Amino acid sequence: MALAHKGLPFERNKVSFTQVPEVEGGVFKTVPVIRDGNQVVGDSFLIAVYLEDSYPDRASLFAGQGGQAMARFIESWTNATLHATLRDIAMMGIHEGLAPVDQAYFRATREARMGMTLEQTAQGRDAALKALPGTLMPLRLMLKSQPWIGGASPLFADYIVFGALQWVRLTSPDTLLETGDPVAEWFERCLDLHDGLGRSVPARATLHRS
Amino acid sequence: MALAHKGLPFERNKVSFTQVPEVEGGVFKTVPVIRDGNQVVGDSFLIAVYLEDSYPDRASLFAGQGGQAMARFIESWTNATLHATLRDIAMMGIHEGLAPVDQAYFRATREARMGMTLEQTAQGRDAALKALPGTLMPLRLMLKSQPWIGGASPLFADYIVFGALQWVRLTSPDTLLETGDPVAEWFERCLDLHDGLGRSVPARATLHRS
Repeated sequence: MALAHKGLPFERNKVSFTQVPEVEGGVFKTVPVIRDGNQVVGDSFLIAVYLEDSYPDRASLFAGQGGQAMARFIESWTNATLHATLRDIAMMGIHEGLAPVDQAYFRATREARMGMTLEQTAQGRDAALKALPGTLMPLRLMLKSQPWIGGASPLFADYIVFGALQWVRLTSPDTLLETGDPVAEWFERCLDLHDGLGRSVPARATLHRS
Repeated sequence: MALAHKGLPFERNKVSFTQVPEVEGGVFKTVPVIRDGNQVVGDSFLIAVYLEDSYPDRASLFAGQGGQAMARFIESWTNATLHATLRDIAMMGIHEGLAPVDQAYFRATREARMGMTLEQTAQGRDAALKALPGTLMPLRLMLKSQPWIGGASPLFADYIVFGALQWVRLTSPDTLLETGDPVAEWFERCLDLHDGLGRSVPARATLHRS
């Protein structure tokens, strides 16, 4: 989304969990990683900062230093609250969609990190589905005053939150939001951006009831 | 805090709840309200926008359009999650500090709005105190990458969150945060800003254990 926002051409390489150590010599523990000529950058926030600094004449991802700083708050909110809720919803669905070698890796690393089995996280699934609308209340409230986190048009901060929900759209059979929820409408607008880039990846299920 | 940030001289008028209809002809239902020459502006966010637009050559409150837009997200997060938690902690303490006429007004309006008595909100006090550190997790996580919501220096978004905690610092006898909590350290930095403007208002209790 950040590359499309900047109008930069790019090729994508699909990478499975166990292939991450093969990406660019294995210096990054996670994806996304981008290569731009001789520059290699990992971590989605640092990639956005790199693109902003390297292509200042193209559409801004932050609309100023304040926007860059506050996008860090939105990233932290997404990680601390939204991902925590989505995790219990999505964990088993992600596992189901993986090849056996990646399933083994995914199970071992995630169970160690969470201190519980994947099946145990799934036991929190109904509670997480019920909690999700409340978790998204800050975004819902903000949407009363503007259509994007970026204000009149989307910025990288929108893509941070979009990415979390898109992750679940692609992996989970669950219906997360009610139609008519301003957050569902914002998510649909995100899917339409950049010639429907987000929508071009098929959903496992619709993200909201229709 | 916004006026001090802009380096503008100002006089303050203390206003009790029942005096709000007397402020500037009663056109505003809430305070703060500022008068700047012939201009009268209410609502703290709109005041900040007014100051930013009217005094563009002074220190910025938003550091760009992105920062202004994302401050709306931080305001929504503060209202949806932080105020909801702080309310149960502070409600009885605010009531105790009011004159009788304001106590009656405060009780009637707040109980109607909340659909419960002040004493009932106070029953949620222990749970709210326990929940507060988790509520502040997005800020705590963000403080790992930068000292202010505004980045290297404070912006209006910092004052939004500071204002919510300062409200409780002035009205509640409770200890809200543990010393050493990065959020408590950020709050102390806020109290130091602008020659200790926030600290100049005496606390009912320290906000964190020392």
